[in-house]
This record gives sequence, structure tokens and C-alpha cells, in this order.
Amino acid sequence: MSDDPRLDPVLARIDADLGDAVERLKSLLRIPSISTDSDYDGHVETAADWLVADLASMGFEAAKRPTTGHPMVTGHGGEGGRHLLFYGHYDVQPVDPLNLWRRDPFDPEVQETEEGKVIRGRGASDDKGQLMTFVEACRAWKTVHGSLPSRLTIFFEGEEESGSPSLIPFLRENADELRADLALICDTGLFDHDTPAITTMLRGLLGEEITITGPDKDLHSGMYGGAAMNPVRVLAKILASLHDESGRITVPGFYDGVPEISDEMRAQWDGLGFNASAFLGDVGLSVPAGEEGRSVLEMIWARPTCEFNGITGGYTGKGFKTVLPSKASAKVSFRLVGTQDPLKIRESFRAMVREMVPADCSVEFHGHGAGPASVMATDDPAFEIARQALSDEWPKEAAFIGSGGSIPVAGYFKTELGMDSMLIGFGKDDDLIHSPNEKYDLRSFHKGIRSWARILAALSA
Amino acid sequence: MSDDPRLDPVLARIDADLGDAVERLKSLLRIPSISTDSDYDGHVETAADWLVADLASMGFEAAKRPTTGHPMVTGHGGEGGRHLLFYGHYDVQPVDPLNLWRRDPFDPEVQETEEGKVIRGRGASDDKGQLMTFVEACRAWKTVHGSLPSRLTIFFEGEEESGSPSLIPFLRENADELRADLALICDTGLFDHDTPAITTMLRGLLGEEITITGPDKDLHSGMYGGAAMNPVRVLAKILASLHDESGRITVPGFYDGVPEISDEMRAQWDGLGFNASAFLGDVGLSVPAGEEGRSVLEMIWARPTCEFNGITGGYTGKGFKTVLPSKASAKVSFRLVGTQDPLKIRESFRAMVREMVPADCSVEFHGHGAGPASVMATDDPAFEIARQALSDEWPKEAAFIGSGGSIPVAGYFKTELGMDSMLIGFGKDDDLIHSPNEKYDLRSFHKGIRSWARILAALSA
Repeated sequence: MSDDPRLDPVLARIDADLGDAVERLKSLLRIPSISTDSDYDGHVETAADWLVADLASMGFEAAKRPTTGHPMVTGHGGEGGRHLLFYGHYDVQPVDPLNLWRRDPFDPEVQETEEGKVIRGRGASDDKGQLMTFVEACRAWKTVHGSLPSRLTIFFEGEEESGSPSLIPFLRENADELRADLALICDTGLFDHDTPAITTMLRGLLGEEITITGPDKDLHSGMYGGAAMNPVRVLAKILASLHDESGRITVPGFYDGVPEISDEMRAQWDGLGFNASAFLGDVGLSVPAGEEGRSVLEMIWARPTCEFNGITGGYTGKGFKTVLPSKASAKVSFRLVGTQDPLKIRESFRAMVREMVPADCSVEFHGHGAGPASVMATDDPAFEIARQALSDEWPKEAAFIGSGGSIPVAGYFKTELGMDSMLIGFGKDDDLIHSPNEKYDLRSFHKGIRSWARILAALSA
Repeated sequence: MSDDPRLDPVLARIDADLGDAVERLKSLLRIPSISTDSDYDGHVETAADWLVADLASMGFEAAKRPTTGHPMVTGHGGEGGRHLLFYGHYDVQPVDPLNLWRRDPFDPEVQETEEGKVIRGRGASDDKGQLMTFVEACRAWKTVHGSLPSRLTIFFEGEEESGSPSLIPFLRENADELRADLALICDTGLFDHDTPAITTMLRGLLGEEITITGPDKDLHSGMYGGAAMNPVRVLAKILASLHDESGRITVPGFYDGVPEISDEMRAQWDGLGFNASAFLGDVGLSVPAGEEGRSVLEMIWARPTCEFNGITGGYTGKGFKTVLPSKASAKVSFRLVGTQDPLKIRESFRAMVREMVPADCSVEFHGHGAGPASVMATDDPAFEIARQALSDEWPKEAAFIGSGGSIPVAGYFKTELGMDSMLIGFGKDDDLIHSPNEKYDLRSFHKGIRSWARILAALSA
């Protein structure tokens, strides 16, 4: 029994309705709303339409909102109390390499595993399953009480996986409509299986694609090899120069604005019992790859990175082809912390690369998103209220943690709308987000819905 | 009028039959005999069958000869005189990037260009057009005289573009059948538009594919970035280390067996009037990429190289995906000169790479051919006889030159059969072999056929 008499019937309704909630999520997962590939544009629209219809069916004033890219979905419902905005994204990552999926990524299924039931499919965890936890909590509340617990604004994005190009313009154009007392963002994870978490530090993300052109056409490596500059050789030199021997990133000025974590935070993190060997061992590794002298939690939560997300050039098919390629390209991303400035780093990176390109090769840059890091306003009492509500639902006390992933929207809510965010999610490290065979624990989905019901009750009490 | 009364009617016949000869070549070019991709195995067989039928139609005792890979084609005809073996290959390179072809690579066409008519299509120059120059010369001779000018053995390979894995076993098993007084190999080029050439130095080729594995699955670069080793980072460091600042290759022992060219050879090459600026300028470059202090002709004919023929890892599609990839791989090839030992270099290269792979990453190697360089026996009088015959056909005197490309078969003829080779071909630097829009000048085809008729006459006089 909870202290709030409104809550127990809602939790009971959630338990009774779980089967139907899973079916609704599966319907949404069947829509291949891959935002990074224009071949899927129609499906992204379909997913937006599905959400508008679902929100409208619960009494939200819901709409698909055009942008110059993929549409946003907004919904307004409830009244009084603290005005909360809930954010999630309905677009998903590409699915390649497709051959590593054990079933169609867009034919979701509930599967039994050794660690319990999971919902398998692209977007199950990132972020359709997560956003539906909030939608289902609202549905249960509305069904039981006939109204929502407070004024709620729903805001779903369809471009999160492709760098949110329309987000800032949309926030600016619709600032008065979207500005709430607090934003709730559901795109993060539990600390571990039993420990819920509120994420209070988020890394930013800067994406860059660089293409080196050497000869103006592919050449025979016998005829020209030795005399003609090979763009793969140029690209390899550039990429190899971006980390020094100690793992530090060499882009000039890169570490401007990178703070050391406080002793207090360090002590709290030490107390979490994080098992770095298990974290790396889970993916077949054993040696931390980041800066010397840093703990693994620091590497993934509090230190900036430079990663190579993709590289291609020349002949990459089966067998061998003695080609000297005309072009080679790489997708490079930087995770940012503290007050690192993504646009300054972009300029510094590009200048450094240009410097390394030989006289008769050329380089082209293509930017993919540039979001700063976020540090949350944990002095807002809502954080402690929500932490308590989460602790009531889960076996262990909720923790304030960092996150290595980037959720630029939190930063934009602050800079564009002056609105603080609270990041709560129920994903797990083994959810395989962005990888083949993505899943979301049925327990995450169920307890996630119940968690939001508790948080909505506590914040509207 | 030539000195040899047998020759003029053959040359006249070649001229009269040119249209039909082009149609025959187009038939062969329509068969997509890509040997490096097993999806095309059936087409490779079809090309072999086509050649067997064509040789048989001219009275050769022709056969398709099975190997553990793609078949060889052999043909025996004529008698008396010097026993000559003619070698060409009927397999072709892959055609990607297909979107850069202006027409179907396997729908050949004679096109008018500013520099004359060309036969456009994959394999037109490398090597179907070239091997058919000899076949057509034989056909004309047989048609005019009812017999071939001397004992001829035809030997066509179907695996040249995939490293000739069956060649050595086939030569060993059929040594008595194939051993001739001299091998004629048609897989090289003219020195320039008006200057025919006999290639007397050929670089060898060692192909290696390396695959680095870091984490055992693709990861989210936010969740693991900074802590998990990125295999693209490892691969870039390895590739970047293979050339030093002066362009020398750093594999230990790599330069063992690399000779300096003689002063005599250097003087001859200086006299060729090679235009290095135009050679590089033709492909949009201006700065020689090889070792400091070497001429461009040395770089492509007499110096060894290390080239990157392909690289791939992570997400290479449209847009961006914040993946930390599990694997990255590169296709690396070395052109070899003098007495460099490909197998020793393979071992040294692999040891060097293993040394650079971090503790918890792994590397796999896949070898793609390992052929030594060849230096021809230019003291055989046949070389001077052939040089004179070529000079009779073309506007300028024929030259003895080097070649950057690798034709390992010449080395194998020597080591396995004790047979010397003479390399004569009619390709041009702008033939776009191994690239989109490959072509063969109609003039190369026509004068190539006439050249072989002259050489056959001269060598059988």
C-alpha cells in the first residue's frame, strides 16, 4: 500500500493491462522508422501517425508537427499541478549488419531467456519501449481516474538517431507551448538489474564524416602503386594521430572545459560497486582503452572520447582487388563533457585534419550533429521526490549516476527553453541498443510503467 | 612489303577480318567471368567453354582443364620450328563501384572517342582483348596458309585476378605438356601511344587481408566509448605505421633483395621521355607518393610498394550511427622487385602487425597470393627478333621497359618449368583496367593482332 490513495488502483490497472500494453508496443516496433536513411522516410511518418492516434485515443490533444526533416509529435492533456513535459524519440537506428539478427528486427516478439522475458526488436529499448512506459502510465491513470494527475505535455522526436537537426528550430518556434516546469526524459538506463537511476551527467556528441580524395578515379595498384598517393594511407595517418600513447585525444584545445569530478561524486561512484572487469568482460574485452590513470566509470561517464564509428575505402567485397582507391572516408564522433564547446572542437578538428592532408589530396567534411554535455539541476526537490518514488518500486535505492551516451535534448531544453530535465529510464547495459538483436526486458517495461505512475503521483501530490 | 612472303597475305586477311574479330571479342566480353567472387563461378566456366570452342574451330586440340579452382584452357596446334607457349587470362576484375560505369560493364560496345575508336567493357584490355590479339593472329595465319607457323601451345588461366591459386599445381602436374622453348605473355602495355614495348622487369605481388576484432559485438559508442578498444583505431595505427616519413616501408627485412637499377638501365629509361607530371596529372595528382629521391619511373617499375586496396569497419551507410564496431579489416598488398621473398615478407608483416595489436584485441590474416618479381632473359635472341618485328608494325622503335603490375605467371614459368617468358602487350595507361569504364583501343586490338602475326613470322623464319 502506498501513502497516496490514488496510486494503488493505477498500479493494479497497469498489472492487469500488461498484455495489451505489450501488444501496443509491438505494433509500434513493427514500423521501421529508421531516421538516418532516407529510404525509410515514409515509415518514420507512419510511426508519428501511430503515436498521434494513440495519444488522441487517451484524450490528449495530439498532433504531428512538420519540420524540414522528420515530424515531431506533440500532445497536451491534464491540468493543474506541476506542468511536466515528457520527451522520447520514436525513430530507431539502422539494423545492419542484418545477417547477425536472429529474427527480423521489425517483427518483434516476447522471448523467454535465462534472465527472464524480453521484448526483442529494433527500438525495443531505444527508445520506443521506453517512451511507451510513460504513455502506458498515463493511459492507466486516465482509465482509473478519468483524468491525468497534472498538466502534461508529450513531445516525441523522430530524428534523435540522426543528430536532431530540426530540434532547435522547433523548440524556438514553439517555445511557449513546450516550456514546462520540468522535463522528464526517458532514454537512459537502470544502474543495474535492481537499482534504478536518475542520470545527472550526460555526455555531448559531435559527429564528423571526413572523406579523403587522392587520385580522381580508382587506379590499378600495379600501374600507379608507389607513385600515386593512396587516400587510405592518408586517412589512416589522420585517424592514428587522434589519440596519443596515453589514450589522450590530440585535437588542439580539446580538453578546454573538461572538469575533474568532485571528491564527493567520486566517493558516491566508488560506492556503487561497479564491476569494471565484468563490464568489459561482457563484450570480450579486459583492458580499459581510455586515458591512463582514469577509472572505467570515469572513462564512460566523465571523460570525453574520440571514436571511429565507421570507415570505408577501396574494394571491400569478397576476395581481392588490386585497386588504388580514389576515396576513403571515416565517420568520427566525439563524446563531450563539462563545458566543452562542440563547435569549437569541430573547427579545431577540421583544421588539424586539413593540416595532415598532402598537397594534392583533398578533404571534405560533413557534420552530423553537435550537442554539448549536460549537468542536471539536482538541487530541484523534484529529483529527491522522484528518487524516492523509484526506490519504492525497485529492490534497491535509486542512484544519481552519469551516462556515457549523449542526449542533447536535455541541453537544448535548458539553453532554448530555460527548462531543467530529469532523466529516468529503464534500459539495461545488455539491451544491445544500436546492435543486432536489441531487446528490452519485459520487467523494465512493466516496472517502468509502474515507476512513472509512482513519479506522477509523487510530483502531483 | 615485308621480307617474309608468308606475312603480307596474313596481314591483309587480318585487316579484312577486323569487324568479325571485334564481334568475337564482344561475345567473350559479354561473359561476366569475375574470378574473385564465387557468385560468378558459372560465368567463369562459360568463358572457358567459349574459348575451348573457339580454339577447336581453328583446329587446335583444345580442352577445359579442371583445377581445384577455376578451369584452365589449353590448346595445341601447329608443328615444327620454335615451340611457343602463349599465355593470357580470361577472368576479369569485379566491376564495383557499378554506379560509376556509364554503361553495363558486360554489354561491350565500340565507341568513338576523341582519341579514336575504343572497345568499352570489363576485360576489354585486361585481359580478354589482349589474349584475343594472339588468337586472331593464329586464325588469320591458319585461314591463309592452312596451318600455323610453328608448334604452338595456348594456355589460358581463369584465376589471374584472384591470385592464381591453382597455377603452380597445374604447371607441376602438366609440366611436360606445357614446357615450350619460350613463353609469350600478353598482359602488358605499350610504352606510349606510338611506342610498343617488351616488358623485361615485372613486380611481384603479395596480398594480405587483416581483420582486427575488438569487442565481441558492435557496441553503442556512448555506453562503451572511452572504455572499450575500437578496432578501427587499432587498424589505423597499424596501417599508419607501414610507411615512414620518407615513404619507405617499415616491415622489417622488407628491402632485402631490392636491387638498384643499373646505370645503363637508368640511362635507357631517361631516354624514353617519360612525362611524370602528365602521368600523375592524368589522375588528378601532382606529388609523387613514393620514396624520397626516386624518379616516378623507378617508383612504378623498380621499387617495391605497400598499398591499401580496401578498408572497412563499422557503419558505412548513409548518415551516422554511433556504433563502436566489433571488427575492422583492410586489404593490403605489396609490389615486390628483384629477389624479395614474398613468403618471408608475409611472415615479417604478420609478426609486425601482431606486435601492434593490443592485449585484448585479436587479428586474423588471410593471404591472397604471393608471387615474386621477374627479370627477363633479354640475352635470348628472340627478344631482339621480336623487338624488330614490333618496330616494323608501330610508328616508333620498340623499347625494353619495366612494369609496375604483377604477372606472377612469368616467375612460375621459370621456377616450375625452367621456361623463359617474353611479355608483349598493347594496353595503354588510360585503359582504366580494374576501374569503371575499362576500354581497349580498337587500334591496340588491330595492330596487336598484326604485331603477333609479324612476331610469329619472325620467330618461325
